[in-house]
Amino acid sequence: MHSLLVVKIGGNILDNAQALDQFLADFASIEQPKILVHGGGKLATELSNKLGIATQMVDGRRITDAGTLQVVTMTYAGWINKSVVAKLQSQHCNAIGMCGADVKLFPATKRAIKELDYGFVGDLNSANVNATFLNNLIASNVTPVVAPISADTNGQLLNVNADTVARTIAEAMTENFAVKLIYCFEKKGLLRNVNDDASVISEISFENTEQLKRDGVITSGMLPKIDNAMGAIINGVKEVVIGHAKDILRIAKGEQGFGTTIKK
Amino acid sequence: MHSLLVVKIGGNILDNAQALDQFLADFASIEQPKILVHGGGKLATELSNKLGIATQMVDGRRITDAGTLQVVTMTYAGWINKSVVAKLQSQHCNAIGMCGADVKLFPATKRAIKELDYGFVGDLNSANVNATFLNNLIASNVTPVVAPISADTNGQLLNVNADTVARTIAEAMTENFAVKLIYCFEKKGLLRNVNDDASVISEISFENTEQLKRDGVITSGMLPKIDNAMGAIINGVKEVVIGHAKDILRIAKGEQGFGTTIKK
Repeated sequence: MHSLLVVKIGGNILDNAQALDQFLADFASIEQPKILVHGGGKLATELSNKLGIATQMVDGRRITDAGTLQVVTMTYAGWINKSVVAKLQSQHCNAIGMCGADVKLFPATKRAIKELDYGFVGDLNSANVNATFLNNLIASNVTPVVAPISADTNGQLLNVNADTVARTIAEAMTENFAVKLIYCFEKKGLLRNVNDDASVISEISFENTEQLKRDGVITSGMLPKIDNAMGAIINGVKEVVIGHAKDILRIAKGEQGFGTTIKK
Repeated sequence: MHSLLVVKIGGNILDNAQALDQFLADFASIEQPKILVHGGGKLATELSNKLGIATQMVDGRRITDAGTLQVVTMTYAGWINKSVVAKLQSQHCNAIGMCGADVKLFPATKRAIKELDYGFVGDLNSANVNATFLNNLIASNVTPVVAPISADTNGQLLNVNADTVARTIAEAMTENFAVKLIYCFEKKGLLRNVNDDASVISEISFENTEQLKRDGVITSGMLPKIDNAMGAIINGVKEVVIGHAKDILRIAKGEQGFGTTIKK
């Protein structure tokens, strides 16, 4: 089975032009099949502020009213997605920008209202990913660059969580590839002490996760990422690593000592 | 040779939710291979105004400074493109949203500064269109939905004219298809009397165009469209029709009495 990298790049890197350029140059140089999923960053919040749209966050998730949906679609699927594609193309990586609505790449369903109404927020199911289209792109040496926006069957655009998009696509691609999922952000991995960059935990397993939560090592900010990582492993993704964007090449190659690897 | 429709939908239709929904339902129902190119509409101007970015127009072309480039990329390639894709998908048309940067669909070069500096505006060349990718999409029954944004080889995003995008793609596709290019807007065609909707000129040719310009029938607003239409015919596009968005099905079928046909 050929290997496939699904790389998610977070907002803090997207917000730093120099870090982003370095990351994209590194990513473009990876020769094996790859998919890039990007988050949003502060541009959406800045634009919302300028337009007088209040940003509501609950558990790290944005409450998406109609105005916010327009802002995130514009920034994620518009400016960020096309800026990244143009930069990758200039580095000879044949990128194509997509969101979940395009060829129903990852159709969403509007999140049901329970304790909280998230607004125009979608949930995903890896069984509904258009893996055939992704397989064809990869066979043509095209690199998908994916924005965390999708739509439901009624044509309603929906905001989706980028970490979850990466995990959902990774799971869907396991039928044809040995998939490695890499969450890149601005830290070297899961840190035992958040103020000490050298305290990276090299490996976590299902068994010690609960203890790490109790110890406060896995904080609320890291929780969705870890949960997605665990879920991906359960559903057939071969390896998940959480690490620094500047270490992408080393993590992609599987070098020891970079990032936190999630195991069963 | 199979036939292919390249349809361009203008800003005034995009700005009218009801007209747009009707147009998209009609467009989705067309069974033959098709490509949709969309313009911008007033959303970009509205957003620029809200953000305090001055909109400068010269000869119907937007002068694109850095702030305006961000606004048009967000609105054209983000909100409008993905809204249209999601609506087409809900009508069972397997749409994919793209701009010129994606798989270098239509690479641009920054317009040289002569009398006027257009800013981040790009010019196109049909020889550089990635027709192979479009052919593959069409063979898979996928409908490209194209935003008028592209990039140069340095990764600089550029604003491009949507009429020109439609013409450029139409020309590039003539190698494999008998291409019909349809410019849809909010009028029934080229009107002899702009205040009389019944005064549609059914056919114009290269010979009478100059006379129509002298007579003031072809106004400055229509000029780029007519010039693009003429250029497309010279470069192998089989037929060009300018007509009302609500007549798209009749124009697509070639019914007499709808729109203005441009002939050699």
